[in-house]
Amino acid sequence: MKAIKLFIAVLFLFALSVHAQDSLVLRKIYDEALVNGESYENLRYLCKQIGPRLSGSANAQKSVEWTKSLMDKYGFDKVYLQECMVPHWVRGEKEIGKIINGKTEINVPICALGMSPATPKEGLKAQVIELRDLDELAKLGESVIKGKIVFFNRPFDPRFIETGRAYGTAGDQRFAGPAAAAKYGAVGVIVRSLTESLDNYPHTGTTVFPDGAKQIPCAAISTKAANQLSTLLRLKKLPTIQFYFKQNCQLLPDAKSYNVVGEMTGSEFPNEVITVGGHLDSWDLAEGAHDDGTGVMQAMEVLRVYKALGMKPKHSIRAVMFMNEENGGRGGDKYAELAMKNGEKHIAAIESDGGGFTPRGFTFQDISKKDLKEINENWSGLLRPYLADHLDAGGSGSDIEPLSIFKDAVLIGYRADSQRYFDIHHTPNDVFENVNKRELELGAAAMTSLVYLIDQHGIK
Amino acid sequence: MKAIKLFIAVLFLFALSVHAQDSLVLRKIYDEALVNGESYENLRYLCKQIGPRLSGSANAQKSVEWTKSLMDKYGFDKVYLQECMVPHWVRGEKEIGKIINGKTEINVPICALGMSPATPKEGLKAQVIELRDLDELAKLGESVIKGKIVFFNRPFDPRFIETGRAYGTAGDQRFAGPAAAAKYGAVGVIVRSLTESLDNYPHTGTTVFPDGAKQIPCAAISTKAANQLSTLLRLKKLPTIQFYFKQNCQLLPDAKSYNVVGEMTGSEFPNEVITVGGHLDSWDLAEGAHDDGTGVMQAMEVLRVYKALGMKPKHSIRAVMFMNEENGGRGGDKYAELAMKNGEKHIAAIESDGGGFTPRGFTFQDISKKDLKEINENWSGLLRPYLADHLDAGGSGSDIEPLSIFKDAVLIGYRADSQRYFDIHHTPNDVFENVNKRELELGAAAMTSLVYLIDQHGIK
Repeated sequence: MKAIKLFIAVLFLFALSVHAQDSLVLRKIYDEALVNGESYENLRYLCKQIGPRLSGSANAQKSVEWTKSLMDKYGFDKVYLQECMVPHWVRGEKEIGKIINGKTEINVPICALGMSPATPKEGLKAQVIELRDLDELAKLGESVIKGKIVFFNRPFDPRFIETGRAYGTAGDQRFAGPAAAAKYGAVGVIVRSLTESLDNYPHTGTTVFPDGAKQIPCAAISTKAANQLSTLLRLKKLPTIQFYFKQNCQLLPDAKSYNVVGEMTGSEFPNEVITVGGHLDSWDLAEGAHDDGTGVMQAMEVLRVYKALGMKPKHSIRAVMFMNEENGGRGGDKYAELAMKNGEKHIAAIESDGGGFTPRGFTFQDISKKDLKEINENWSGLLRPYLADHLDAGGSGSDIEPLSIFKDAVLIGYRADSQRYFDIHHTPNDVFENVNKRELELGAAAMTSLVYLIDQHGIK
Repeated sequence: MKAIKLFIAVLFLFALSVHAQDSLVLRKIYDEALVNGESYENLRYLCKQIGPRLSGSANAQKSVEWTKSLMDKYGFDKVYLQECMVPHWVRGEKEIGKIINGKTEINVPICALGMSPATPKEGLKAQVIELRDLDELAKLGESVIKGKIVFFNRPFDPRFIETGRAYGTAGDQRFAGPAAAAKYGAVGVIVRSLTESLDNYPHTGTTVFPDGAKQIPCAAISTKAANQLSTLLRLKKLPTIQFYFKQNCQLLPDAKSYNVVGEMTGSEFPNEVITVGGHLDSWDLAEGAHDDGTGVMQAMEVLRVYKALGMKPKHSIRAVMFMNEENGGRGGDKYAELAMKNGEKHIAAIESDGGGFTPRGFTFQDISKKDLKEINENWSGLLRPYLADHLDAGGSGSDIEPLSIFKDAVLIGYRADSQRYFDIHHTPNDVFENVNKRELELGAAAMTSLVYLIDQHGIK
């Protein structure tokens, strides 16, 4: 009996000392990221010296070359490119949008949705019909929709605490609305910008035309202009209100591009990989600062912090700058495909693609209640001093989702505070000036901490 | 035995149903604040139609009248003013600051610290000596300090996770530095702005000259200019670098002003009070948006939400717009003094004075470990869906601190995310545009939720 008690006591002390050791390492990680952090200045370069980096563009290529050279300079164990073919959509000239109310024409801010075809050269003018959702579209059917411009105008639901959920429930208008409206004979689609904020910027973003689907021109309209159009539609009889828009965007042949990968090779399990990443491509309207310059620079910072502190991971840790998240996801697909082909084992992946705001925690995709409980019991307390302790079930990130082909891989989303993200998401306002240095660095430190805990203790 | 088991089961079910009921009420509170919230538009008025409101100014009086009339309009049970005399310090003309390096004069951004005296009319020029802290000042003593301008230049420590702690540990330079330097014969003091951010704004704020202490002119200098001055001091021999500044601020006779109080009177315990507040006065350089327009508008929103939802509190709930937090604290003192004089009982007070950023939770002042544990066990889970569940020991707010004369009063600080606060704190950048609508509203909802829980269940 005494022996058992002693054994339990030793076990308990061991657990305590492991916890204390982890706690010290986390403190070191945070100190390094907050005192000597380089993610902010790296982000400044990416935003200000390179700028917008839509897949297939010259800037996207520049960003590939620069991030590779930066990781070479940091001297990570391996730095390499993964070639992939990506869609090459170009916006063309600045779009023109007008509400036509009898003889009055009101210019309104619009921008083509990514992957949209052009309007006819002279533009497109038609009666406009306002709809809340795709159900209403289906109910009205071809007899009402044919020949019209459909105006999807369902606002964000402000009651969600995390704005990503509001985006999730309003997003079908943009993702699926144009293709659905085309089926019923619409000639064009205007979508209310996906934000709760009332502003004058159209928020771009991709739309999806499934293979073989009819494609019609589609654009986002700013929320203020959407309200204006909606008010006019209610005041006037339908036929007197028309919408006009003109855009000459086009889809060019696929272009060659790359994921950029940096690796610290594992000392014990070099073939077992923990991936940490964001996406390098961005929309063309701004600098892709929060979406997702912050994510790639945080991923790179994870490896830099490891190196600066002389930490040797047991597993291989990879910082991956994924290409083409915004309008295709080809980089994420390629990464998983090569991982499988190369016989790698993937134990975990973390993506930061919700902006570089203050950390709140992490979400774990397809996690069992039991596993989540254990993760919380083990790690939530360690992350609590850093206020990054909300560990929940939830999504990960679209670049790492293809890694779900690895059954043992735990896919994780880094969760930053979401309140300001959709104010600037996919707009000309997504610029470096809107990133806070400390918020960015705290995120990098939180990601490094979780990578460290997974590397030390495993996660499944 | 069976009876006891049954009793325990009934107790358990009762506890469950109370929790479920609370959970429903919190959801209603959040829905009201997020869908119909008025704090943001109220704040817009306070910032844009009234503006800076330093104690004793005409704008401070306007803000008293306007917030009173607004609470009258809302129809709270009682709305009244509490008269108090406040210091009336005025900045005067825009300050001039120069680094003088031999024949070169470099203009740098400075501003007088609150309560500072003026320089001589022609300005003040002297050799400048850079110090890290008050210990160094004492060590060097009068023989070195006499006749010089002391330049306190200790930066924020970036390793603190919450920036309020960095402010706390750097703040003595501004609060106590000038009076201490005067004792050793310094002729003026320049203080590095209290922020981690490298920017071109001087951050003002009050300094304290104890009764009878010698007063010397003192000013804040922007962090970029502080670095520049520090670099020059290191490059050049000390006597060649001088500093010149000119300011004509002055302290006028005390002025009459007011706290503004709104109350929902308790249905069961009308003489037992829960206070929720912020401060109405602000620095003169901007609009006092985050400091502390957000706090007062959130406090008012607590009562508005109660009324909108038809909730009848058991205890009296007061929204208090305190006067003179920035340079005197007279409003807070007056509120506690009158409470005692009127024989009121105060059970809790919550202050929001850390900016209107995303809620993280609350801190409880002078709380026992046992009480804090209980609060966490009872309420942390209820606040978790709203990500406002960090309930810690810590400070409350300087306006409610005088209520500590009530031994049963629990004093609570509302904790918003702190990362951006000191970027704009006491600068011309503390404007309405830097407040996010949702962050503000979520804070008001969190405060209302805690008030509701305290009102329903007590807290001690």
